[in-house]
Amino acid sequence: MKTKIGIVICGLENNRQFVTNTYIQAIQSIGGLPIILPLIKSKSAIGEYQKLCDGFLFCGGGDITPLLFGQEPAYGIKNTDITLDLYQIRLMKCILETDKPVLGICRSMQILNVACGGTIHQDLRSLDVETINHMQTSLLRRDISHKVSFTPNSHIHKILGPFAYTNSFHHQAIDSLGNDLIVTGTTGDDMIEAIEMPSHSFVVGVQWHPENMCNSSSNMKQIFHAFLRYSRIH
Amino acid sequence: MKTKIGIVICGLENNRQFVTNTYIQAIQSIGGLPIILPLIKSKSAIGEYQKLCDGFLFCGGGDITPLLFGQEPAYGIKNTDITLDLYQIRLMKCILETDKPVLGICRSMQILNVACGGTIHQDLRSLDVETINHMQTSLLRRDISHKVSFTPNSHIHKILGPFAYTNSFHHQAIDSLGNDLIVTGTTGDDMIEAIEMPSHSFVVGVQWHPENMCNSSSNMKQIFHAFLRYSRIH
Amino acid sequence: MKTKIGIVICGLENNRQFVTNTYIQAIQSIGGLPIILPLIKSKSAIGEYQKLCDGFLFCGGGDITPLLFGQEPAYGIKNTDITLDLYQIRLMKCILETDKPVLGICRSMQILNVACGGTIHQDLRSLDVETINHMQTSLLRRDISHKVSFTPNSHIHKILGPFAYTNSFHHQAIDSLGNDLIVTGTTGDDMIEAIEMPSHSFVVGVQWHPENMCNSSSNMKQIFHAFLRYSRIH
Amino acid sequence: MKTKIGIVICGLENNRQFVTNTYIQAIQSIGGLPIILPLIKSKSAIGEYQKLCDGFLFCGGGDITPLLFGQEPAYGIKNTDITLDLYQIRLMKCILETDKPVLGICRSMQILNVACGGTIHQDLRSLDVETINHMQTSLLRRDISHKVSFTPNSHIHKILGPFAYTNSFHHQAIDSLGNDLIVTGTTGDDMIEAIEMPSHSFVVGVQWHPENMCNSSSNMKQIFHAFLRYSRIH
Amino acid sequence: MKTKIGIVICGLENNRQFVTNTYIQAIQSIGGLPIILPLIKSKSAIGEYQKLCDGFLFCGGGDITPLLFGQEPAYGIKNTDITLDLYQIRLMKCILETDKPVLGICRSMQILNVACGGTIHQDLRSLDVETINHMQTSLLRRDISHKVSFTPNSHIHKILGPFAYTNSFHHQAIDSLGNDLIVTGTTGDDMIEAIEMPSHSFVVGVQWHPENMCNSSSNMKQIFHAFLRYSRIH
Amino acid sequence: MKTKIGIVICGLENNRQFVTNTYIQAIQSIGGLPIILPLIKSKSAIGEYQKLCDGFLFCGGGDITPLLFGQEPAYGIKNTDITLDLYQIRLMKCILETDKPVLGICRSMQILNVACGGTIHQDLRSLDVETINHMQTSLLRRDISHKVSFTPNSHIHKILGPFAYTNSFHHQAIDSLGNDLIVTGTTGDDMIEAIEMPSHSFVVGVQWHPENMCNSSSNMKQIFHAFLRYSRIH
Amino acid sequence: MKTKIGIVICGLENNRQFVTNTYIQAIQSIGGLPIILPLIKSKSAIGEYQKLCDGFLFCGGGDITPLLFGQEPAYGIKNTDITLDLYQIRLMKCILETDKPVLGICRSMQILNVACGGTIHQDLRSLDVETINHMQTSLLRRDISHKVSFTPNSHIHKILGPFAYTNSFHHQAIDSLGNDLIVTGTTGDDMIEAIEMPSHSFVVGVQWHPENMCNSSSNMKQIFHAFLRYSRIH
Amino acid sequence: MKTKIGIVICGLENNRQFVTNTYIQAIQSIGGLPIILPLIKSKSAIGEYQKLCDGFLFCGGGDITPLLFGQEPAYGIKNTDITLDLYQIRLMKCILETDKPVLGICRSMQILNVACGGTIHQDLRSLDVETINHMQTSLLRRDISHKVSFTPNSHIHKILGPFAYTNSFHHQAIDSLGNDLIVTGTTGDDMIEAIEMPSHSFVVGVQWHPENMCNSSSNMKQIFHAFLRYSRIH
Repeated sequence: MKTKIGIVICGLENNRQFVTNTYIQAIQSIGGLPIILPLIKSKSAIGEYQKLCDGFLFCGGGDITPLLFGQEPAYGIKNTDITLDLYQIRLMKCILETDKPVLGICRSMQILNVACGGTIHQDLRSLDVETINHMQTSLLRRDISHKVSFTPNSHIHKILGPFAYTNSFHHQAIDSLGNDLIVTGTTGDDMIEAIEMPSHSFVVGVQWHPENMCNSSSNMKQIFHAFLRYSRIH
Repeated sequence: MKTKIGIVICGLENNRQFVTNTYIQAIQSIGGLPIILPLIKSKSAIGEYQKLCDGFLFCGGGDITPLLFGQEPAYGIKNTDITLDLYQIRLMKCILETDKPVLGICRSMQILNVACGGTIHQDLRSLDVETINHMQTSLLRRDISHKVSFTPNSHIHKILGPFAYTNSFHHQAIDSLGNDLIVTGTTGDDMIEAIEMPSHSFVVGVQWHPENMCNSSSNMKQIFHAFLRYSRIH
Repeated sequence: MKTKIGIVICGLENNRQFVTNTYIQAIQSIGGLPIILPLIKSKSAIGEYQKLCDGFLFCGGGDITPLLFGQEPAYGIKNTDITLDLYQIRLMKCILETDKPVLGICRSMQILNVACGGTIHQDLRSLDVETINHMQTSLLRRDISHKVSFTPNSHIHKILGPFAYTNSFHHQAIDSLGNDLIVTGTTGDDMIEAIEMPSHSFVVGVQWHPENMCNSSSNMKQIFHAFLRYSRIH
Repeated sequence: MKTKIGIVICGLENNRQFVTNTYIQAIQSIGGLPIILPLIKSKSAIGEYQKLCDGFLFCGGGDITPLLFGQEPAYGIKNTDITLDLYQIRLMKCILETDKPVLGICRSMQILNVACGGTIHQDLRSLDVETINHMQTSLLRRDISHKVSFTPNSHIHKILGPFAYTNSFHHQAIDSLGNDLIVTGTTGDDMIEAIEMPSHSFVVGVQWHPENMCNSSSNMKQIFHAFLRYSRIH
Repeated sequence: MKTKIGIVICGLENNRQFVTNTYIQAIQSIGGLPIILPLIKSKSAIGEYQKLCDGFLFCGGGDITPLLFGQEPAYGIKNTDITLDLYQIRLMKCILETDKPVLGICRSMQILNVACGGTIHQDLRSLDVETINHMQTSLLRRDISHKVSFTPNSHIHKILGPFAYTNSFHHQAIDSLGNDLIVTGTTGDDMIEAIEMPSHSFVVGVQWHPENMCNSSSNMKQIFHAFLRYSRIH
Repeated sequence: MKTKIGIVICGLENNRQFVTNTYIQAIQSIGGLPIILPLIKSKSAIGEYQKLCDGFLFCGGGDITPLLFGQEPAYGIKNTDITLDLYQIRLMKCILETDKPVLGICRSMQILNVACGGTIHQDLRSLDVETINHMQTSLLRRDISHKVSFTPNSHIHKILGPFAYTNSFHHQAIDSLGNDLIVTGTTGDDMIEAIEMPSHSFVVGVQWHPENMCNSSSNMKQIFHAFLRYSRIH
Repeated sequence: MKTKIGIVICGLENNRQFVTNTYIQAIQSIGGLPIILPLIKSKSAIGEYQKLCDGFLFCGGGDITPLLFGQEPAYGIKNTDITLDLYQIRLMKCILETDKPVLGICRSMQILNVACGGTIHQDLRSLDVETINHMQTSLLRRDISHKVSFTPNSHIHKILGPFAYTNSFHHQAIDSLGNDLIVTGTTGDDMIEAIEMPSHSFVVGVQWHPENMCNSSSNMKQIFHAFLRYSRIH
Repeated sequence: MKTKIGIVICGLENNRQFVTNTYIQAIQSIGGLPIILPLIKSKSAIGEYQKLCDGFLFCGGGDITPLLFGQEPAYGIKNTDITLDLYQIRLMKCILETDKPVLGICRSMQILNVACGGTIHQDLRSLDVETINHMQTSLLRRDISHKVSFTPNSHIHKILGPFAYTNSFHHQAIDSLGNDLIVTGTTGDDMIEAIEMPSHSFVVGVQWHPENMCNSSSNMKQIFHAFLRYSRIH
């Protein structure tokens, strides 16, 4: 029996629920069984999804509704979908009641943070301190854009070593950290690029997109291998 | 524990795998637990999906690659995706080895037929006998377009009675029927609009789109109720 | 107190109910008080609209759902909106129970015909007999396209004389005439271009668009004057 | 006999006069009889419209021509239509000569203000004091965006209580208040979000869009119920 | 003093009157003084334009309104502009009352024909006899498409010899020839490709576009030289 | 014989030379004979155009190449066409050698200024002093936007009186005035809105677009009447 | 020193000369040195290109100008570029004077045929005999569409065996065969799908696109291997 | 034997490798033999391309990936393609190991600089010192935009003299100069517009686009003549 990885739906557009194919292929290529969890409004369903899967992959996407982390909307915020936000936050909280592994990528690192009570910079350009362009302009999503340094003894340090060059596609970032979370990766302009929850076996969020790099970088693929390994043993 | 309905992925576009939301809501609204089965190339995964779910919903979509039912492509055929076709046919065959319920809508009634060895009219407009426009032009997908008559004692007759007015969105149709299938619904121009597999508890295909009509027509919703009922008792 | 002319809504697009401005200006320019009757699903409202206005203008628009005149859809039919069709037919029938004047233009001449039990050619191009292109290609809608001859003693003959050159924007046309209606105008290829209901004071349908011509042709403006005159005396 | 609510035309685009369907359905769903008042240049017509209806709904829309409140155009202003502005202001003034109820939404709260001699901030982004993004970026118009606090004893306070979360779609706002008007609702950045005219039974303006929220929020629907109730008793 | 060549306006689009630049450059490059004659509705202006210029160039363009040559519109006709048609026909007739030279290209060969009482095939594709595609599909307008043979002793024969390879951009063609005109060029499928009026010094119409070829073909440039020579001596 | 008004070509787009129709109709409606002067590179042609016409209308259009008034390009400048600029400046200079009347509208008031050695603000938004939005956002071009005050005894004062409300469509404006020119109109933010050349009978430039307003404002039409009157007496 | 393969330019669009990347990667992946030969008008350059390279790859593209094989254009023909056609035909003839290897794909199999004096069906749909749709509609270019059978002892038979399933993207086909060429592959509807020139070592044309299939089919890659092998030994 | 000029591929778009035609024609028009060097990942191929050609033309294009000159991406940077950047830098370095001539235009002057260890301003608008708009807005690419002054005794001074007016299409510019390079041209705002490598016979970079100007300016054509002359003698 393969390890069942629940991939949380990425969004809803033109009456279609979708998941970017790259995430599905990343799970499949390392031997996991991908199962897509759709967006539905039903508390009992959330509970059943939590029980059904061995690990949970939350993917990249759009901005998060500011009211959900206690702020009124500022200029620079882009499209939000409060229904999707609420669904993903509820599902995340429901999963964190167990010790099942979670991998949160880009927007979903921020969903993890908000689910734990943290807040988000609504738009990096309105910060004075920031200097790097975190919204990459390269032709291919797998191209590298900047450097990230990692905290010793963290999951991500064990996987990638003291630093790595990553791609970068975000205009929001974590502001105040959620409860029980620690920072494990930062850029030169002090943006938070990776977080973890030490109280759990493997709850990891990364701000970049390793799923786009795992065909050209064996290191990045190791993130998914580690995630699957922890999922299997639960 | 809710009844787990595997909804087979509808397609791949712009690097996204998607399912039309209407199918997901139809399953959720009658109390089933929707689980989306993504498109991956792995025989072992197909077997695991077959075991995981209690019933299987195959949705509408595009044309089927003619080589898969033994024909070379004719004029009038529209976009095809042989990878999706092969995945759905293999999954269908794998499920038919069990007695688990299947509901196939529009394109997927034809997938069921091809999986059983049947063939497809590649384009209705090139047939001489046909007179009704089966590609509806109304503003709303729930609007009715033509009449369908049903075979006594079939599942669909038990649900909808001797006839019904349905919507209609297809330019292809079943030509020769696959093995072990029977026709259970036809229009005035003798197009096949519904089929069943008598050897199985509930393997039903319909050419129209009941998922678009089930908010405005309680009859059409009964198709999903019957499907869920059979799925539950397996 | 001005004469109140109810202008029936033309359609619904992008969540907007609209009436083409030309109809409103045509009524206003001859001294009527235009009131727009929106599309709502309420039988009591239809009755109140019938009582509120002195005369009723039904405008041009799209195709009519074939099931409403007892046919299944044929090739060549364009977009239909069964909700709008039903609303206009019900409102038309409700008005015809009184002797209040009605002017039906293009699509609405066909709505009048269907409300009286008549039928429609779904697409002129599929008729063998027809030779004139009734879908005008000129730069301006007011430009003339073909000739129409009128029946002596009809309203339209009294207004325009034995014949007129008209514009032309339709691909459907009346097939069998509805009850209590007579033909009062035809083209050289025997298409029905004008109808009347002799049992009523002024129930007139025309297939062309006089509202586009009434700034450049004083004759065409007389159609609206006659309609307003009859509305005023009721 | 139903209560007749005059819905003032929203605008003119591509030679069509239109009203957003949501406003019509909001009036219909609570039992009012919606009548659309078109844009025509005729003083006598304005007087007849005033007499014909029991209450008047003015809807959302674009910016207001600055010359009409005594300013030259500033940067940041968007599309204006002086013909529509003049028509709505004249109609508003004509209605305010009576005690018939008025509900003005978004742009029309500003039309009410200008009709009473008030002025408008031409573009919120050029104000230094303002901090909230009042142009919502969420997927659905019914989603909430910020908080509004209400003045005790105002109509809006009686309906919604001391505060509410509302949607928000505007880049202009009231600057100096018109004669006989009072502020009844504000946001955290001191923008005026609701006004009333205490000398009249029910003349209410709101800056947000309750018509988009009244299917998901019973509170918001009460605004329309109150408006209809006052219209009925006149 | 240079020879004044009146170039008749090509059309009106997006509120702009325009002439394709190629015609202007063709006249300028051979030493004529181009003057553009705009479209205005004024009989006296037409007379003054006739007196002002030494020769007249009528350019290519769209289809001609069929009523102007006594036909009702047939299928296959494309956009027409009756105002432009009438202006060009009236101006053509006014010029033909003198002996001033006229060169009519493509559509304008047909304008010349209609001005003389001839008729037009509304769409070549609906003719049974025709076999060549007269609507060229090449990348560049100067590329050649088919062969044209010329009548001995005609102007065009004197300029180009017994035959030439030409470009071709038309879907209409001359049917019955106008009064006082003769055919001077035809293709292999007997389409009329060049006409002249023997009673006048130089009144020539060609169906192809020599103005696009005169940079790459010195022969084609000779058509303009001949036209200018005759204009100069008047 | 009508007075011949040379209308200078507005521009070249998609290989078409064009003049906005409104200018042509403005000249025609007051009894002038419009003649369009195309863009060609020929000094002798410019001289012949100067002799041919009685008065010259230069129309609105895009930005002017900064090198032509001695500047390098700054940010905020939009599309320029140096060939058109040079043609119009040379033609303007050639005309100013005579006393023939010139009317320059919007861009062409600036062409007049540059032809006399003046300079242009490349983009108003980069000026600190300016406060009015001179790029109108109204639905119709004839709508008014701001106020302009005129210098006593100027042509424009004699025609329009001490001030007028005008439309406004420009993002550039005159900086230093050309030789022999005087300012005759300004807005509240001190932008130059009208100029004249006192040494000539009638050489007038206006920054707004009177040709769009002359159907709705008899005052604005008087500008064209004055221009034609002076042209006739030369 | 690697074997130099001249890849002939595919076309010119938006002022860019281009080669589809797939051809370049196909040559590179098997160890050849790709050199792109641009489109220039120079006989001496053609001779130098012929000497410079060891083998020549001619790629797919658009239709061929019919005059170049002695026909006038028929309906159904698509965009042509006579400059590109002439360049490729001249280069092809120049190469065939040597024994250097040539591989012609799709359009270029037809260029080879025309260079040898053969003709082309201008559009398959206008043939009565033909029944297969040769313009594939599948999602991916590598998907198979129909079957092709090969002539014993031909190059293509040695590489692929008696038959193969291929993709198919063409609406034109060889009609009469050029001099010195033989047919080596056909489909079930007798279309010519492969040709060779027996007098040369390796001059091969195929109608399908092996370059799209050579990552998923090792057989198709062998076509390029054979071509490179012959090029190397010259 | 003609002089072989390797033109390095400009980019990859929609699966096509392309070179802008203007560069190819510039080389051909002065008698060089253009050969296009495609983008492939192969070190041995780079070496063979270096040996094959006599001179190398590097063309204009997009931005350069900042990590390649040691910076993290800043705001204002546009699309980059790290694969293309690396290929061109490697090829440039390989060529600079010889004394073969190089001409680098616009982006490629910056590629030359980076290949020598220099850095780039990522976006001119974020510099405070700069005042000229270096991104030209004129209709034609050949139009001049600003003045450039040249260093005595440089190649570019010998060709063009002490200064020239050039076109200008860039938003990036050289910051710190690479090793062995000298500045040979600047604008009034001190931007570097031309560089050379004195240790080599002819390694020249220019920031403007002489290839667009060489039909209208014989001076600019001399740049290509000089480049070809040096290439020939190697």
